[in-house]
Amino acid sequence: MLKVVVIGSGNVAQHVIIAFKKAVGMELVQVFARDKNSLSHLLYTDVITSDYSQLITADLYIIAVSDYAIVDVSSRLQLADKLVVHTSGSVAMEALNDKNRKGVFYPLQTFSKNKDIDFNKVPICLEAQNTTDLELLKKVARTISENVYEIDSNQRKSLHVAAVFVSNFVNYMYQIGSEICTQNEVPFEILKPLIIETANKVMTLSPTEAQTGPAKRDDTQTINSHLNFLSDENQKEIYKLLTKSIIDNGKKL
Amino acid sequence: MLKVVVIGSGNVAQHVIIAFKKAVGMELVQVFARDKNSLSHLLYTDVITSDYSQLITADLYIIAVSDYAIVDVSSRLQLADKLVVHTSGSVAMEALNDKNRKGVFYPLQTFSKNKDIDFNKVPICLEAQNTTDLELLKKVARTISENVYEIDSNQRKSLHVAAVFVSNFVNYMYQIGSEICTQNEVPFEILKPLIIETANKVMTLSPTEAQTGPAKRDDTQTINSHLNFLSDENQKEIYKLLTKSIIDNGKKL
Repeated sequence: MLKVVVIGSGNVAQHVIIAFKKAVGMELVQVFARDKNSLSHLLYTDVITSDYSQLITADLYIIAVSDYAIVDVSSRLQLADKLVVHTSGSVAMEALNDKNRKGVFYPLQTFSKNKDIDFNKVPICLEAQNTTDLELLKKVARTISENVYEIDSNQRKSLHVAAVFVSNFVNYMYQIGSEICTQNEVPFEILKPLIIETANKVMTLSPTEAQTGPAKRDDTQTINSHLNFLSDENQKEIYKLLTKSIIDNGKKL
Repeated sequence: MLKVVVIGSGNVAQHVIIAFKKAVGMELVQVFARDKNSLSHLLYTDVITSDYSQLITADLYIIAVSDYAIVDVSSRLQLADKLVVHTSGSVAMEALNDKNRKGVFYPLQTFSKNKDIDFNKVPICLEAQNTTDLELLKKVARTISENVYEIDSNQRKSLHVAAVFVSNFVNYMYQIGSEICTQNEVPFEILKPLIIETANKVMTLSPTEAQTGPAKRDDTQTINSHLNFLSDENQKEIYKLLTKSIIDNGKKL
């Protein structure tokens, strides 16, 4: 049975821990958390340590901490020649401390507290310094997800940037939609089926095929009427830039 | 049985026709299409007319044509004091010709050819000049959807603008994500679970609660590394503006 230690207690760490607790074919033998209480709702305290010198032997150590803490945490591990991976989309594998074998175990998903995830569908992007370690990572990843990919650091960075567009920026578009609803006393509820359908469409159509709306049609009259309607300068500026981009993009095709 | 005539043969018209064909409690008695063949895959040709003088008597006439054609089509109808509605999000009810009673029957959804819709979930926003007509519109709308709303012209316009943000602009974010994947030889597939989860999150969390990512954390290092990574000026400009907006927005809260 593959033994895994998770280091971290934040958002990603917690979702990974929940996934591993359900997994068959691997064993979550220990979790490192600076504050043991932060995980008491998920784990018995005897598997949690907050002392680096107490880390036990395992096949894989997964550092699931903030990007800026990865270098520091990986240097503090009192381990040598173990397989140590981080879970970040944007940090290079090389950033991990040299005393251990390095890898990446990047679950490409948006994790929020108070929102369960079906981890089985979460793509896990793997990278390692050698084939043996990569195979071990694949084995562990496949115990929690059916979508496992081998992705190098540069590709992973591109995915991370793309994820900002299709998730963070998309969510911000939802927020502006919600603001416009509030400003006009319309329930945001009304937009929810549209939000779901817009996401569903690109499961089967390409985004280019799926594009609709006044910018796509270069419908100047509707665009101007929308710009007149918007009073918030920030909303207006975003509307203008994205409309112009969609129009220019249409002309390129 | 309520009798309905649909005027139009485009995208929206076709989805509405499909929905009405399945509906119980109303009867689609006729469809007007300039080119009868455009609907031959959906209807027997004997219910289609391309002659305004052949329009038959019905309780409701739904004009489902492009925004710019509504004024013209509604003036061509050889009818008087009938209930005539349009299906546009951005055209005022008053734009309809004065010889008939006016209303709006706006299905708030993104319609594409080659993509079926579960019409039962599509919000239908209704408006009419008097209560009797509004009740009739509600009856008809409820035969095809469980989400029926009474929305005045100004609110409808705000919904239409909000829909551009949560659907058209969102889809454009998907397109940029897809471009970045292509440029870096990563399958767009990997982003699909993230796209679905990002949409699902705002079904239960507010967009403000659901926001994640480097801009939300004001993580300058990751933001700069993303900007260095992007080589396309259009992508860069959008990344900058949306990141700045999310950061400024966080400071307002």
